[in-house]
Amino acid sequence: MAIRIFVTGGTFDKEYNELNGALYFQDTHLPEMLDLGRSKLNVDIRMLMMVDSVVMTDEDRQIILTNCENTPEERIVITHGTDTMVETASILGAASIGKTIVLTGAMIPYKFGSSDGLFNLGSALAFAQSLPPGVYIAMNGKAFPWDNVRKNRETGRFEVLDKEAAAEPAP
Amino acid sequence: MAIRIFVTGGTFDKEYNELNGALYFQDTHLPEMLDLGRSKLNVDIRMLMMVDSVVMTDEDRQIILTNCENTPEERIVITHGTDTMVETASILGAASIGKTIVLTGAMIPYKFGSSDGLFNLGSALAFAQSLPPGVYIAMNGKAFPWDNVRKNRETGRFEVLDKEAAAEPAP
Amino acid sequence: MAIRIFVTGGTFDKEYNELNGALYFQDTHLPEMLDLGRSKLNVDIRMLMMVDSVVMTDEDRQIILTNCENTPEERIVITHGTDTMVETASILGAASIGKTIVLTGAMIPYKFGSSDGLFNLGSALAFAQSLPPGVYIAMNGKAFPWDNVRKNRETGRFEVLDKEAAAEPAP
Amino acid sequence: MAIRIFVTGGTFDKEYNELNGALYFQDTHLPEMLDLGRSKLNVDIRMLMMVDSVVMTDEDRQIILTNCENTPEERIVITHGTDTMVETASILGAASIGKTIVLTGAMIPYKFGSSDGLFNLGSALAFAQSLPPGVYIAMNGKAFPWDNVRKNRETGRFEVLDKEAAAEPAP
Repeated sequence: MAIRIFVTGGTFDKEYNELNGALYFQDTHLPEMLDLGRSKLNVDIRMLMMVDSVVMTDEDRQIILTNCENTPEERIVITHGTDTMVETASILGAASIGKTIVLTGAMIPYKFGSSDGLFNLGSALAFAQSLPPGVYIAMNGKAFPWDNVRKNRETGRFEVLDKEAAAEPAP
Repeated sequence: MAIRIFVTGGTFDKEYNELNGALYFQDTHLPEMLDLGRSKLNVDIRMLMMVDSVVMTDEDRQIILTNCENTPEERIVITHGTDTMVETASILGAASIGKTIVLTGAMIPYKFGSSDGLFNLGSALAFAQSLPPGVYIAMNGKAFPWDNVRKNRETGRFEVLDKEAAAEPAP
Repeated sequence: MAIRIFVTGGTFDKEYNELNGALYFQDTHLPEMLDLGRSKLNVDIRMLMMVDSVVMTDEDRQIILTNCENTPEERIVITHGTDTMVETASILGAASIGKTIVLTGAMIPYKFGSSDGLFNLGSALAFAQSLPPGVYIAMNGKAFPWDNVRKNRETGRFEVLDKEAAAEPAP
Repeated sequence: MAIRIFVTGGTFDKEYNELNGALYFQDTHLPEMLDLGRSKLNVDIRMLMMVDSVVMTDEDRQIILTNCENTPEERIVITHGTDTMVETASILGAASIGKTIVLTGAMIPYKFGSSDGLFNLGSALAFAQSLPPGVYIAMNGKAFPWDNVRKNRETGRFEVLDKEAAAEPAP
């Protein structure tokens, strides 16, 4: 099963510049993370952009959408800043592409040691392989459908909009 | 969706004893790993044993099977040493419990910094939520059905027994 | 041999705020770092301030000086941001206190995994025990006298002002 | 000031073999550790052997002694397993070479993340630059003269033999 990974930046790939103390983007750590996870998946990584998601533009989101439409793979993972991940997901979701698309990110840069990135990447790749076509956000161990999720800015966690719909029916 | 995690030991939870240079088990790192991954899943962790999987006995496997049968959750993740993970999976698979059971582990102890454990745990929890009832091994980013997987001892990677059956049909 | 450690902040103790992506100070990591180094030194840690050294004021430097003068220990280590470490050292040096005072810091925060902080702390504590009274900067594995050192902002490394004076005489 | 580093193995350089779960030696991590510490010291690293110090022989110690005598540098750091570090130090000390020789090691392998190695290396290099000729063990933040030190096997810490001699005179 071939999986396409689109890299767009976000906290995932931020690094610390030791000369000026600022955070910046250099290159993606996705290949290194897949090696660390001993992944043997058939993945193809393409970097579409390398931006903080708060500065992501409508044009950027069109680039992401177009790439999702045009890539031959039916399974796609997108690494993305968490601040506007929901916004990008809703544009992809509204386009009804008919592929399984999973957005994921991190609260702490991968290079900072205590990152959630590796956990999130593992779950995003698993959801991309196992969920039916649709657009999802994989964060906090869960997969949220694109039209029922928000980032709670006070806790930094993702949660469903509609708590009732999310209530679990008895199995 | 409630998930049960059964801990059985394995490389996942090994630590380095600085007084005698030996590897040993102290306690499980699962709660710490879930915190690191910012998991908000509804999980319940129970430690069934804390052993190297090469010394796991038939009695140990019966304990695991009984616990899988008796726990109310329909979704189960088992952390397990990789050496005999396939053997335990086959006993659980043959029992046809009707739940989604995912075994996972690590090649490098979580405490050693360069571990694949966090990636594997993320993928195992995702597969446990999204795959239909059955017994699977989640390693190397993939979910292998219990009756078509082996650990390649030369590479340390998991692979399907039957390469043809694993060939991917055109989507 | 009793050693006093004065904490003033700097990159050493910076942390990443996962809610807003900013770097900030919370608490000092010195006790944790000494534990990691299995230090059995007789040290007493006091936090004087917790600031980025670019915002350190003359008043702050007077506080540091007064504390160095008043503390009973003859051996002092000061953790400090690298940007103005030389400036603070020159104020302490000009005061001719008659104690061995060693300033040190880090280019990368201790919590970010790839920090030079633990190496620098080890060398600073060793220099504080073994060098004669005077004020020194311990960075890059070396001890620089306070009146012959500068931070090269392009390389991020500390170096002597006067290369000739620094030339090594045959032993 | 030129410093010679002799590598002999020990916990410092042990790695985890993910295929069989055993600890082994591959190559020294000294260059990587010096890079991490942003060391700008003039050091020359030579690997004399790569052994666990419990299996170090008299012949091995003669090789170390001969190399210390013959190397042109007056300042030497030796990385060594902690179990027999005192024994090697006493052979070097008895030879009265007239150089500053500092042995150091680690309780936890450098690659395991929570190692004391970087702290010890920083202190050993500092002591090697600042102490008068003699043979010392740099562990736990301190420098112990070769003829007044033992490893306490219960605590894993180094301590003086003669507590009275170690009592600190008033400054």
